[in-house]
Amino acid sequence: MKLYDWQGAPNPRRVLMFLKEKGVEIPVIETGAKDRAKLSEDYLTSDNQRTVPALEIDDGTRIGEAMAICRYLETLHPEPPLMGRDPLESARIDMWERRADMEGIGAVSELFRNSHPAFEGRGLPGWAVRIEQIPELVERGRARMNWFFEKFDAQIGDNAFITGANFTVADITAFCATDFGRKVCKAEIPDSCANFTRWYEAVRARPSAKR
Amino acid sequence: MKLYDWQGAPNPRRVLMFLKEKGVEIPVIETGAKDRAKLSEDYLTSDNQRTVPALEIDDGTRIGEAMAICRYLETLHPEPPLMGRDPLESARIDMWERRADMEGIGAVSELFRNSHPAFEGRGLPGWAVRIEQIPELVERGRARMNWFFEKFDAQIGDNAFITGANFTVADITAFCATDFGRKVCKAEIPDSCANFTRWYEAVRARPSAKR
Repeated sequence: MKLYDWQGAPNPRRVLMFLKEKGVEIPVIETGAKDRAKLSEDYLTSDNQRTVPALEIDDGTRIGEAMAICRYLETLHPEPPLMGRDPLESARIDMWERRADMEGIGAVSELFRNSHPAFEGRGLPGWAVRIEQIPELVERGRARMNWFFEKFDAQIGDNAFITGANFTVADITAFCATDFGRKVCKAEIPDSCANFTRWYEAVRARPSAKR
Repeated sequence: MKLYDWQGAPNPRRVLMFLKEKGVEIPVIETGAKDRAKLSEDYLTSDNQRTVPALEIDDGTRIGEAMAICRYLETLHPEPPLMGRDPLESARIDMWERRADMEGIGAVSELFRNSHPAFEGRGLPGWAVRIEQIPELVERGRARMNWFFEKFDAQIGDNAFITGANFTVADITAFCATDFGRKVCKAEIPDSCANFTRWYEAVRARPSAKR
């Protein structure tokens, strides 16, 4: 089993954090130089989806999409549980993970892809043809990031983590969106979001957050 | 247990199809008149996420996000399995369901929200403030729909369904995106996508596809 990664990207990081939280080590294949902001031609040719992460199992089958990979790994390595301990807890985690994906990763991707000079003509991931950047999406992406910070600040409230006392995959997705936004897109957590800031610092201090 | 729906929308339809495939009936609450293209103020006030679907269980807890709801229902009603019979099959279904969501539902939402006059100022779902429509996203949404048709046409190939011989939740998501696109956005399946057309007609003929 091995994982295809590209170091600059937030989505493979979700799987890497998940593996570290499980204490599982698998070979990680870099699909491109970090400073080139582009996956290698070899990888792009080998993978119809043209995105990372991808988990390749021993018969050569590839599983793409971060949460499909994490859920598969959760069945192989159930401890510690990162996707819930009973159906209702799992449903709440699924719900908040999906919101962190759509509203956090989605926002920061919109902001990043439409503003970074290295992504000129690559406004959407995975496309083999040009997708023009759209300047209006830079401003909209920033507004979405702020909305994400505010919504999750309210959800965290006095809890340690997004869905309560336990660290879960919802925290992983929200953290990877936030950390990428801060480091690459100057999307800072607003001062008004004290719960979010406390949560972010706590997650950043976990060994699994090292990139 | 009850489900909050709005008849015009593709996302609650995913859950309704899922329930029908399971043979499970639960009360369905309409959150707004179909011809008004807007959720009721009562519902919007009651739900921080301001979107449908939402599943309310008997203690009043609400679960939002179509796939979080479906996964919860799958644990309560495992037969027939719509999310896989073993970890690897489940991972492939998760992966293709997520692509149908991002690339099918995502594309048609972009096209619809940015072009329909009734959604002027409501370019993104769930927002309490104005989000302007962006004309460039109409064209991009159409290109994304075509990309979705072509990618899934290749994936279906000679199979009956998206991940092989069995009907799954990946088919539900892809069908709801396609049917909404055809009926509301004039997004027709290209003639070149014969596998996709065959698949679409077969899914449309299922009793669960009635709206």
